[in-house]
Amino acid sequence: MEIHAEAYNRPIGIFDSGIGGLTVLKALKDKLPHESFIYFGDLAHSPYGTKSKKMVRAYARTITRFLLAQEVKLIVIACNTASASAAQEVRRMAYPVPVLEVVEYGVEAALQIIGQADQTNHRVGVLGTPTTVSSEVYVEQLRIKAKERDIALEIQQAACPLFAPLAEEGLWQGEIPKLIAAMYLHDMHAFAPDVVILGCTHYPLLREVIAEQLPESTKLVDSASLIAERAKQLLEDKKLLRLTPEPGSIDIYSSDSEDTFRRMATRFLDMTVDIVHYVELDAWEESEG
Amino acid sequence: MEIHAEAYNRPIGIFDSGIGGLTVLKALKDKLPHESFIYFGDLAHSPYGTKSKKMVRAYARTITRFLLAQEVKLIVIACNTASASAAQEVRRMAYPVPVLEVVEYGVEAALQIIGQADQTNHRVGVLGTPTTVSSEVYVEQLRIKAKERDIALEIQQAACPLFAPLAEEGLWQGEIPKLIAAMYLHDMHAFAPDVVILGCTHYPLLREVIAEQLPESTKLVDSASLIAERAKQLLEDKKLLRLTPEPGSIDIYSSDSEDTFRRMATRFLDMTVDIVHYVELDAWEESEG
Repeated sequence: MEIHAEAYNRPIGIFDSGIGGLTVLKALKDKLPHESFIYFGDLAHSPYGTKSKKMVRAYARTITRFLLAQEVKLIVIACNTASASAAQEVRRMAYPVPVLEVVEYGVEAALQIIGQADQTNHRVGVLGTPTTVSSEVYVEQLRIKAKERDIALEIQQAACPLFAPLAEEGLWQGEIPKLIAAMYLHDMHAFAPDVVILGCTHYPLLREVIAEQLPESTKLVDSASLIAERAKQLLEDKKLLRLTPEPGSIDIYSSDSEDTFRRMATRFLDMTVDIVHYVELDAWEESEG
Repeated sequence: MEIHAEAYNRPIGIFDSGIGGLTVLKALKDKLPHESFIYFGDLAHSPYGTKSKKMVRAYARTITRFLLAQEVKLIVIACNTASASAAQEVRRMAYPVPVLEVVEYGVEAALQIIGQADQTNHRVGVLGTPTTVSSEVYVEQLRIKAKERDIALEIQQAACPLFAPLAEEGLWQGEIPKLIAAMYLHDMHAFAPDVVILGCTHYPLLREVIAEQLPESTKLVDSASLIAERAKQLLEDKKLLRLTPEPGSIDIYSSDSEDTFRRMATRFLDMTVDIVHYVELDAWEESEG
């Protein structure tokens, strides 16, 4: 403990394109109530899901630079599009600060369920933004891990570009999200997957309407609770857990106006968002050369 | 003519947050087939409609700097959110290059229709993005111009944040946009407006479903054809019309990847988009101090 006398008091950094990652923040806060969190929502560039991989990478680099300057002890990429596009770069920049990203734990959550089943052949569905789906990162990671465990997998993806705007509008239930889910999930229903990965941090908010459009036997998984477990384990292993009786703080930073964020976050989460700090992201961009 | 021997050959610059402004480009191209156009779609920051006024202003300044460096003879702000947030700043920066913006011609189109009616009291509806609606710029301009013409107006606005994502998804017709339109336009229907301004360049693509949710007597207007007329008049007055038998060129620039733009533009417009140039927008940002 003495060695890390300063480090363990440092905050955990989390980032997302906007408010979707608050679902991951909530899971982390539940599991690690004594930790302090710095959450960065890149509302100035939101949504990431229709931006190019190159662009999302540039945004992720800038935010990583900002979080490292806040001396975070762990970075959680709480956005599937950013994880799919920029995880390796963020890891390289942040080293030796550890980095967790949602794609890995979405994959892990799916394989845990499959591991309990008796079948020999398994079908996994992946729902994501256009950029996440076209990156094929879920397909790739599922294949690698399934091979390691000698599991035979069939995989089908579906891009659901309107899910994130719907979630941000608070349209989580009712006829409109139901019809949109039916449109996106028609082929997925026919595929009859054993597990479907909710591959965007907004999608857990639409869990009910998504479940309605899939066979009853299909299980839905997301990365939030596994990534929170893994974060706890990792901090324990590195002796970086904050050991104090008081609850930690949550500081929310946004690259667009605080008002926008507060309005959206209040609608979004069962968590009061009082103080949102505005950050001019340009100041954290890499300099030329 | 001799005085402007160079200037009249210069292109017209148009910008939008993304692809919505292509509806304005199309109207301009129809009216001014011999002109050359430079269209800038700020896909890296799209959509503007949920970003803060401050942020949209910063984007507009950067794009204006880019267009002026291309030696445009006229700038058309083909985005209502940018017009609502940044028109004055763009005008000041561009001077003496003239600037046309869509809000003014949306207002003008509405008042032309009202001017033909026999009533003494008129109701105008405005549909726009959250940022446009909260800027109240339509309300303000409608009041000023109505007062000048001694017309009594009642005005009601409705923010329709999902319309732009729907339009970009190509969901222009059918049950989904119909239900979303019904949700947003419920109060507007009760208001029974004489005219409704489609205050976002995406909305003309949803014209049919919007019309279905309003009284039959309600007329829908947008700024595209009036702004094209005004552009022609302005270039004539300034002797800046390109007088040549050949059709002009269209060059499309995007702050995100060409692929994204081409994919969206092809879906969006009855116009082939072959060449899209990628522009790193950061290079055109204002320097410190």
